[in-house]
Amino acid sequence: MADNFKSGSRPIDILVSEVGPRDGLQSITPIMPMAARKAWISAEAAAGVREIEVGSFVPARILPQLEGTAEVVAHACSIPGLTVAALVPNARGARDAIAAGAHKITIPLSVSETHSMRNLRRSHQQVLAEVAEIGAAIRALPEGQRPHFEGSLSTAFGCTLEGAIPDAQILRLAEALMAAGCDEVGIADTTGYADPVAVKHLIRILRDAVGEQAVQGIHLHNTRGLGLANVLAALDAGLTTVDSSLGGLGGCPFAPGASGNIVTEDLVFMLEAMGLRTGIDLPKLFAVREILMQHLPDEPLYGFIPDAGLPLVFTAAAERRKEAA
Amino acid sequence: MADNFKSGSRPIDILVSEVGPRDGLQSITPIMPMAARKAWISAEAAAGVREIEVGSFVPARILPQLEGTAEVVAHACSIPGLTVAALVPNARGARDAIAAGAHKITIPLSVSETHSMRNLRRSHQQVLAEVAEIGAAIRALPEGQRPHFEGSLSTAFGCTLEGAIPDAQILRLAEALMAAGCDEVGIADTTGYADPVAVKHLIRILRDAVGEQAVQGIHLHNTRGLGLANVLAALDAGLTTVDSSLGGLGGCPFAPGASGNIVTEDLVFMLEAMGLRTGIDLPKLFAVREILMQHLPDEPLYGFIPDAGLPLVFTAAAERRKEAA
Repeated sequence: MADNFKSGSRPIDILVSEVGPRDGLQSITPIMPMAARKAWISAEAAAGVREIEVGSFVPARILPQLEGTAEVVAHACSIPGLTVAALVPNARGARDAIAAGAHKITIPLSVSETHSMRNLRRSHQQVLAEVAEIGAAIRALPEGQRPHFEGSLSTAFGCTLEGAIPDAQILRLAEALMAAGCDEVGIADTTGYADPVAVKHLIRILRDAVGEQAVQGIHLHNTRGLGLANVLAALDAGLTTVDSSLGGLGGCPFAPGASGNIVTEDLVFMLEAMGLRTGIDLPKLFAVREILMQHLPDEPLYGFIPDAGLPLVFTAAAERRKEAA
Repeated sequence: MADNFKSGSRPIDILVSEVGPRDGLQSITPIMPMAARKAWISAEAAAGVREIEVGSFVPARILPQLEGTAEVVAHACSIPGLTVAALVPNARGARDAIAAGAHKITIPLSVSETHSMRNLRRSHQQVLAEVAEIGAAIRALPEGQRPHFEGSLSTAFGCTLEGAIPDAQILRLAEALMAAGCDEVGIADTTGYADPVAVKHLIRILRDAVGEQAVQGIHLHNTRGLGLANVLAALDAGLTTVDSSLGGLGGCPFAPGASGNIVTEDLVFMLEAMGLRTGIDLPKLFAVREILMQHLPDEPLYGFIPDAGLPLVFTAAAERRKEAA
């Protein structure tokens, strides 16, 4: 399974990790039919997306929108070259994710303990105990079958309840995640509080603490319009994986008219315009929006580039690249 | 007059140049009453904005929305510490701007000659002749009364008609503007084609060609959502002046739902969150939107931060800065 992690037929510079089928779908009320969820994942993979977080292993009574994630994982695992990621809230969810065949498992740890208690009803110590249990379960698997295991530091740029979280506390939790068996520590701007300076600072101190290889990805929100500027800061600081959501599905509950996650289409456009290879074909990616429009007709889709269209200079450059290849 | 240029009571790191009263108003059909135009400018200056492009010296039959710019300039010049900028299409407009007392005069030169012929009905040679005439008129003024004179390279990141414009052509035109008497060469992403790599590249080659001091400001659009990421790239490349428009007034005709100019509120939030001083008080700036809502009730206003609100961490940091000051 793990052999699939970050693989792919052609070299890319930046891994765009699509989280819409998990983060988008869990943020809306309508339930997307199983066949449409699978079709969405297949279409994005066909557009060149290399990693998709396809669901979350939570009880259906809590998130009915994500019921049947095991079936979605199995479908996604049949797509060659796709890294199939799943979110898990605890060790039980991780066991289900492993059984389903996920290549990558992410467990969130809110660096704000108030937020952790309020939203997950678990203290830092309790979450870390779950992480250790998952770490042990993964190590018990034969080598080559172990999923990549990420601990994601949520509310990393501040909490709506506690405000700023001290650097020392974030670093202590990152070190604890690695000690408990994580392969990687993710950074998540759950509250949309990040700015480019804060992004660079946090990446630098985290990499100093747990090593460069263990800090590769970031999950940013566009709540305050800084999403892509924060991506740029993260790239400058050396990160290579960026989460985003097709059409910004789900929006942001705190900011009407704003996408929650950054929009995959806009992110890929920025990266490709900068000459960074994502492996993703933009017109094919735009076409995937039709699946969302058809099956979630009442949900607004976000994104600038699908409306504005590709610049003439971009299309011409893409043609030249194709000819050269 | 020129003494006012970039002056101000307290030091700032980045000059946010508000262009809404010119670029915003000229892009919409309704005509804002003269009293409201003045009130808008006064309120933004009171919020700490140091430079405002208050209008354009074009015949009222072409842009009735900007009729009476001389009266607006005179009003704005009565505000202590405010740099009053005006756009001019030609030497006749520049004479009017000088007579009205503008501190800064900007003439656009489209680096795409097709665009220049189509939109301004003038070749590069004809525009440069106007620039030379303006340059001579300014030099004829007594020292200390000369307005700052900027030539703005529009369609600098590509043209919807011609596509990419060769670097050599842009540099030749920048040098010609300086030779004809400009103090500064501005960069304008008229078509919303810029990306962070292109922004850094163009700034670097322009500064190499005409000198660092002559390349200080940039006018970016948010047509494709990269506005603030492009700002970040421009700051990285050393620029210190960024144009923006309150509420993104006027929108973008090519991209429904997108602001044309970058939104002043979001720009100031990003800069201040990064610890860069703009001199602008954000809550006071948000309040200026009410003038627009009252007098242009049918025009949508853009911006993420006015909806989402300031982060708790930002407000706390601002309090600490106030206490320390």
